Amino acid sequence: DPYLKVFSLNSNPELAKEIANHVGVELGKSSVKRFSDGEVQINIEESIRGCDVFVVQSTSAPVNEHLMELLIMIDALKRASARTINIVMPYYGYARQDRKARSREPITSKLIADLLETAGADRVITLDLHAAQIQGFFNIPIDHLVGVKILSEHFIEKNLEDVVVVSPDHGGVTRARMLADRLKAPIAIIDKRRPRPNVAEVMNIVGNVEGKTAILIDDIIDTAGTITLAANAMMENGAKEVYACCTHPVLSGPAIERIDNSKIKELAVTNSIPLSEEKQSPKITQLSVGKLIAESIKRVHEHRSISSLFD
Amino acid sequence: DPYLKVFSLNSNPELAKEIANHVGVELGKSSVKRFSDGEVQINIEESIRGCDVFVVQSTSAPVNEHLMELLIMIDALKRASARTINIVMPYYGYARQDRKARSREPITSKLIADLLETAGADRVITLDLHAAQIQGFFNIPIDHLVGVKILSEHFIEKNLEDVVVVSPDHGGVTRARMLADRLKAPIAIIDKRRPRPNVAEVMNIVGNVEGKTAILIDDIIDTAGTITLAANAMMENGAKEVYACCTHPVLSGPAIERIDNSKIKELAVTNSIPLSEEKQSPKITQLSVGKLIAESIKRVHEHRSISSLFD
Ligand SMILES: Nc1ncnc2c1ncn2[C@@H]1O[C@H](COP(=O)(O)O)[C@@H](O)[C@H]1O
Ligand SMILES: Nc1ncnc2c1ncn2[C@@H]1O[C@H](COP(=O)(O)O)[C@@H](O)[C@H]1O
Repeated sequence: DPYLKVFSLNSNPELAKEIANHVGVELGKSSVKRFSDGEVQINIEESIRGCDVFVVQSTSAPVNEHLMELLIMIDALKRASARTINIVMPYYGYARQDRKARSREPITSKLIADLLETAGADRVITLDLHAAQIQGFFNIPIDHLVGVKILSEHFIEKNLEDVVVVSPDHGGVTRARMLADRLKAPIAIIDKRRPRPNVAEVMNIVGNVEGKTAILIDDIIDTAGTITLAANAMMENGAKEVYACCTHPVLSGPAIERIDNSKIKELAVTNSIPLSEEKQSPKITQLSVGKLIAESIKRVHEHRSISSLFD
Repeated sequence: DPYLKVFSLNSNPELAKEIANHVGVELGKSSVKRFSDGEVQINIEESIRGCDVFVVQSTSAPVNEHLMELLIMIDALKRASARTINIVMPYYGYARQDRKARSREPITSKLIADLLETAGADRVITLDLHAAQIQGFFNIPIDHLVGVKILSEHFIEKNLEDVVVVSPDHGGVTRARMLADRLKAPIAIIDKRRPRPNVAEVMNIVGNVEGKTAILIDDIIDTAGTITLAANAMMENGAKEVYACCTHPVLSGPAIERIDNSKIKELAVTNSIPLSEEKQSPKITQLSVGKLIAESIKRVHEHRSISSLFD
């Protein structure tokens, strides 16, 4: 289909290639470089006039570079008369400031939504937003894919016995429930609370983990403090072994060291963020969301192809 | 005046301090840091409710970092109920892509204007835009200051004799004329042309430089190729000595080396972009735009103070 184009920027070149393969097109020809002073320089090297264009870019680190590449690419596509500009953002950065938790805080995840729309995005395809409410920050359609199927298939293949799925905090219970359903397992929750100010947090476990294989699940693992402490708490409470999984392996700062030194047997993640060399660990297994995203692209484009008959 | 606030981000902390001094206020209290994953983390540490806030930030290198700091700061100020959010951007980055020179190019300087407005800017104060037309990219008021007065005062103090002001290309003749008026000097123009494709450019000088003190002027000096070749052409055409000046010392890549090895006796620049350590050179003199900008801020705020009597 000459009216379907998939372009990659610099965050996820491998995933973009895989997506293009699954969709059945060649990756669009473009170059994304820097001028001498560090400004982003983008060249789109083939016509995209009248096309449905899908641009693959996660706003992972270096987040400000990746975001500006994306905004400038959208601007260029718009001026080159793309029919629709569809952003494929497997990892949506700046999501965690999604409310004013304290006075005079920005709400960066809403700002990012506004910037994408202003640049000219027509649709966003993304995966496991930090809060589902971020969908409401957009006035354009947003396809919100879920990574739990991919994570669950990985654990089903392992044939683990006597599993309990554990949420490391209150906010993640729904996610834990989704995984538990697929694994036909019960759930448990780590219930952290501070009895008095300036007193160490107490980790109480709601549910039974004794003698079981615990699978911790979170959406993002960033510095890995929460997940590794949770893993320790599992073992201290009599779990037989502990696995962990998340959709977005941000893995900044001490993350890899903490994971390597933790009780976690294996950490399963997706490739919404590629693992650079410093982020390699024998404990980490990376699963691809390429097919999941490609299917979503095909659905979007098929619908448009049909509706264009009536344009 | 408790309703006038000046905040600095990370591009020009010294200039911001100087501006605040001239305006007669303390710099607003805030911190601009990074989360572990590289996302910008801004805290505004004093109330700004109902205030006219001026945020000093050039979008100089690292341009994408500085731009995102600015957009997130604007978002935070907006949500903290600033009366007006005024962007003081001595150097406006991404200005050079201001038209579609080739197919499928972005127009980044328009994109930046749209992003600033979307974030919530009410006004922009800037200096020597690469093209005056960029003013038209905004739907909010833009105060366009001119650096030529500061540059001309520097050269007037030197008491140079028999001066000719030289534009290094056709695009800069108006700027050269402005400086020449102030120095009561004639102008000359370097007229580059390529006689045939794939043949070296010929540098022809329109006007007389023989025996004279030439002062080259440009808006931006980036890699310093143009300006140092122009300086050589001056000496080859019999100039006695050659000075250079510009408003915005971008000075990327080989710039400092080229300037140090050139025939340029002195390069005068403003502090719209601070000179980091790698950009120091005994040939460069930096002149402050602090007072110029402070006066502009006072004019804006005075007007608002008066008009607020009728709110
Ligand atoms: N990039 C980031 N890294 C670490 N913490 C962040 C980041 N962005 C936002 N936060 C903080 O994380 C908190 C939100 O986390 P959560 O409660 O898990 O949604 C907020 O208080 C934010 O200030
Ligand atoms: N940051 C940059 N560094 C070098 N060249 C640039 C930059 N941004 C834009 N350009 C190019 O500079 C040209 C415009 O320069 P000018 O003709 O002096 O306005 C355009 O062809 C741009 O592609």
